[in-house]
Amino acid sequence: MKLTFSPASPFARKVRIAAIELGLIDRIELMPVTVAPATRDDEYSKITPLKKLPVLILDDGDVMVDSYVIVEYLDELAGGGKLVPATGPLRWKIKRDHSLLQGMLDAMLLCRYENMVRPQELRWKAWSDDHWNRAWLGMARFEQEAEAMTGRPLDIAQIALVCVLGYADFRFADCGWRQAYPKLNAFHDRMLERPSVKISLPPKA
Amino acid sequence: MKLTFSPASPFARKVRIAAIELGLIDRIELMPVTVAPATRDDEYSKITPLKKLPVLILDDGDVMVDSYVIVEYLDELAGGGKLVPATGPLRWKIKRDHSLLQGMLDAMLLCRYENMVRPQELRWKAWSDDHWNRAWLGMARFEQEAEAMTGRPLDIAQIALVCVLGYADFRFADCGWRQAYPKLNAFHDRMLERPSVKISLPPKA
Repeated sequence: MKLTFSPASPFARKVRIAAIELGLIDRIELMPVTVAPATRDDEYSKITPLKKLPVLILDDGDVMVDSYVIVEYLDELAGGGKLVPATGPLRWKIKRDHSLLQGMLDAMLLCRYENMVRPQELRWKAWSDDHWNRAWLGMARFEQEAEAMTGRPLDIAQIALVCVLGYADFRFADCGWRQAYPKLNAFHDRMLERPSVKISLPPKA
Repeated sequence: MKLTFSPASPFARKVRIAAIELGLIDRIELMPVTVAPATRDDEYSKITPLKKLPVLILDDGDVMVDSYVIVEYLDELAGGGKLVPATGPLRWKIKRDHSLLQGMLDAMLLCRYENMVRPQELRWKAWSDDHWNRAWLGMARFEQEAEAMTGRPLDIAQIALVCVLGYADFRFADCGWRQAYPKLNAFHDRMLERPSVKISLPPKA
């Protein structure tokens, strides 16, 4: 299998961490791709009309988009019920939490595009404020969850949360999340003890 | 359960159609909500920091975001394996197709915000062209799938596709998808025979 990949993408990082933790990383070839909104890329659009990272390209040529569905698929390949519990009370809690975190990443990415990619004279502060606020309020919610999450076996929500925080460091270095959310900071430190989390840290901005 | 809802939201429409088809609509109270990007809404942000539609509010107060995960949850409530096959070769095909369609809806929504909500002097044509192109190329891909989809029992990918096409009619009435994609047009006509699809058509723009 191939995975379209950039070290800057928090969604690609999520899949990479999952693949390492599931013992599948050796079966996946990372394919470096750079994507930029508002720029045509006919070659990559043939792989995915959505022009986003990551995409898992299966050995038969089929493509799978959306980091969440890719992780679900890898989880099943690895036997199932590893990073997304197959049953039980935690199953929907973890899926719910993951959806929130995925939405926070989407909001942060839109915020970055607004503040750093869009031509300066076309930026709309109310838009980026609103999207940053979605991520920030989301972090406040997970500040209440961080201790419980640290105590659980690894799951897709924990992986997504570390990707949110790593992306905040990478693209919003001055946002002050560590001061505002000390329990998230402790969670992040604990997660960094995992080689999968450490090796996949985004590059220096 | 309650579902935050707007007749204009293609994501809320997807959940509504699924709930009707799963026989669960009578257990769900539709809660009208209007969301607007770049506008604060402290009340709704308390329900979901992502400030998006739809949200399923469970009877114990827990919230579930993301129309896909909500449909998965409702599917399990209805016995499982109805709109998302539990096993078999179609399972990952349908999940993959649904992810593409979900991404097409995201791109169309960003396009609408750019062209119709953002202050006129701040619009970036390359951004909206790129996002429209993602949806349009995605439709081209589903033009190849439409006949096979029509022949299958109802699933989440078919529901998402009818929501993409309905949203194109609603917000991009002049885009010409019917002429460009005649098989999608035939698919859409067939889907409209279902009361769930018909009752949930978006309002006139």
